[in-house]
Amino acid sequence: MELPSTHLQNASDQIATLPGIGKKSALRIALNLLSRNKEEVEAFLKAIQGMKENVRFCSTCHNISDDLECSICSNPKRDNETLCVVEDVRDVMAIEATGTFKGKYHVLGGVISPMDGVSPKDLNIETLIQRVEQGSIHELIFALSPTMEGDTTNYYIFKKLKDHSLVVTTLSRGIAIGSELHYADELTLGRSFQNRQPYHGAK
Amino acid sequence: MELPSTHLQNASDQIATLPGIGKKSALRIALNLLSRNKEEVEAFLKAIQGMKENVRFCSTCHNISDDLECSICSNPKRDNETLCVVEDVRDVMAIEATGTFKGKYHVLGGVISPMDGVSPKDLNIETLIQRVEQGSIHELIFALSPTMEGDTTNYYIFKKLKDHSLVVTTLSRGIAIGSELHYADELTLGRSFQNRQPYHGAK
Repeated sequence: MELPSTHLQNASDQIATLPGIGKKSALRIALNLLSRNKEEVEAFLKAIQGMKENVRFCSTCHNISDDLECSICSNPKRDNETLCVVEDVRDVMAIEATGTFKGKYHVLGGVISPMDGVSPKDLNIETLIQRVEQGSIHELIFALSPTMEGDTTNYYIFKKLKDHSLVVTTLSRGIAIGSELHYADELTLGRSFQNRQPYHGAK
Repeated sequence: MELPSTHLQNASDQIATLPGIGKKSALRIALNLLSRNKEEVEAFLKAIQGMKENVRFCSTCHNISDDLECSICSNPKRDNETLCVVEDVRDVMAIEATGTFKGKYHVLGGVISPMDGVSPKDLNIETLIQRVEQGSIHELIFALSPTMEGDTTNYYIFKKLKDHSLVVTTLSRGIAIGSELHYADELTLGRSFQNRQPYHGAK
C-alpha cells in the first residue's frame, strides 16, 4: 500500500521497526500520532529521548537504574549472600513482583546463542565472576529461560565457577499453579515427577 | 510491576498511549529503544517529528499530503465527476490499492457518533457540501463502514444534499470473495440475497 506522504511513510517505516509492530499497526500508530496536538507529540518524543539520555545500567548488577547503582544493589536490607542470575531486566521486575526473593541480581543481558551470534563475551559474565570472586556470595540461583540457550549459559557459568565453594541452584520446573495436568507438555510433566516433593498436607 | 527507573517508566507510559499497545508491549518497546544506539533512536524520533511538522491535509479532500493539494486531487487524469466519501485516510489507501476507482475522494475524518461525542460539525461535511454545490459532481459514492454510525452519517449527508441532482450510491455488501457461505453472518447473507445479481456465466 503506497502512502500519500513521504513523511508519513518515513515515520511509519520507523515505527514498524519496533518489536511486535507490523506494517498495518505502524500506519495506525503514525496516524494516531498525527491526529494528536503538538504538545502531546512533543511529550511523547521527549519521554523517549529522556529515557535514552538518562537511563543508566547499574554498575554492579547491570539492572536499569536512574543512578550509578540501582535501588536493589544499594538497599542495605537485601541479602548480599544470594545472587540470582537473570537474562533480562524484565526478569528482575517479574521476580520482584513476586515479593519472594530478598537477595540481589545479576543481569546477563541475554543468553549464549551461537545461532544469533551471541557469545559469552557479549554478556555480563565477566562481572558476575568478579562478584563471586569477591567472596561474599554463598548461593547462586540460575533463573534463565528453560531453553537450550539458557541451559548452555547455565553450564558455561557453572564451569567457570566450579573452583569456588558456592551453592548453585536453579528454579524449580513443574506444572504451573492453577493449570490442568493433562495440558502440561511431556517434558514438564516428566520433570515434575522426577522432582516430586514431600507432601505436608494442606498449608 | 514497578519499573526500576522513572525515565523508563515515563517512556513506557507514553508508548502505552499508542493504539493497540498494552503495558507489557510498551515496556518491551521501551527496552528495545533503550538497547539501540543513539543514532538509531535519533532517526526514529526525527521521523515522527518530521511527520508531525511536515504532513499536511489536502485543502480539497482532506487526504494526507506533502503539498497543499494531494496527488489524487491534483491528478488531471482522475474523474472529477465521481466523488467517494470515506471515513479515514486509510480507506483512501485501501481503495487506491484495488486500482478500480478513478474518481476523487472526500475524507470525513470520522463518522457521526453521539456516544463518542462526534457531531456533524466535527467532520469535514461542510466542505463536502461546498464541493457538491460547485456543480461538477455527478455521482457521490458512500464508502463508510457498515455500522450504525456509518449509516447515520450516510443518511445525514444524503438529507443535506437531497435538493441537488446527484446519483448517490453505496458500496455493495455481500459475501466476501473466497469466503465460505456458511461462515457469513445472517445479516450479510440476507443482504446478499436481496441484492442478488444477474449471472453472466464464467468471466
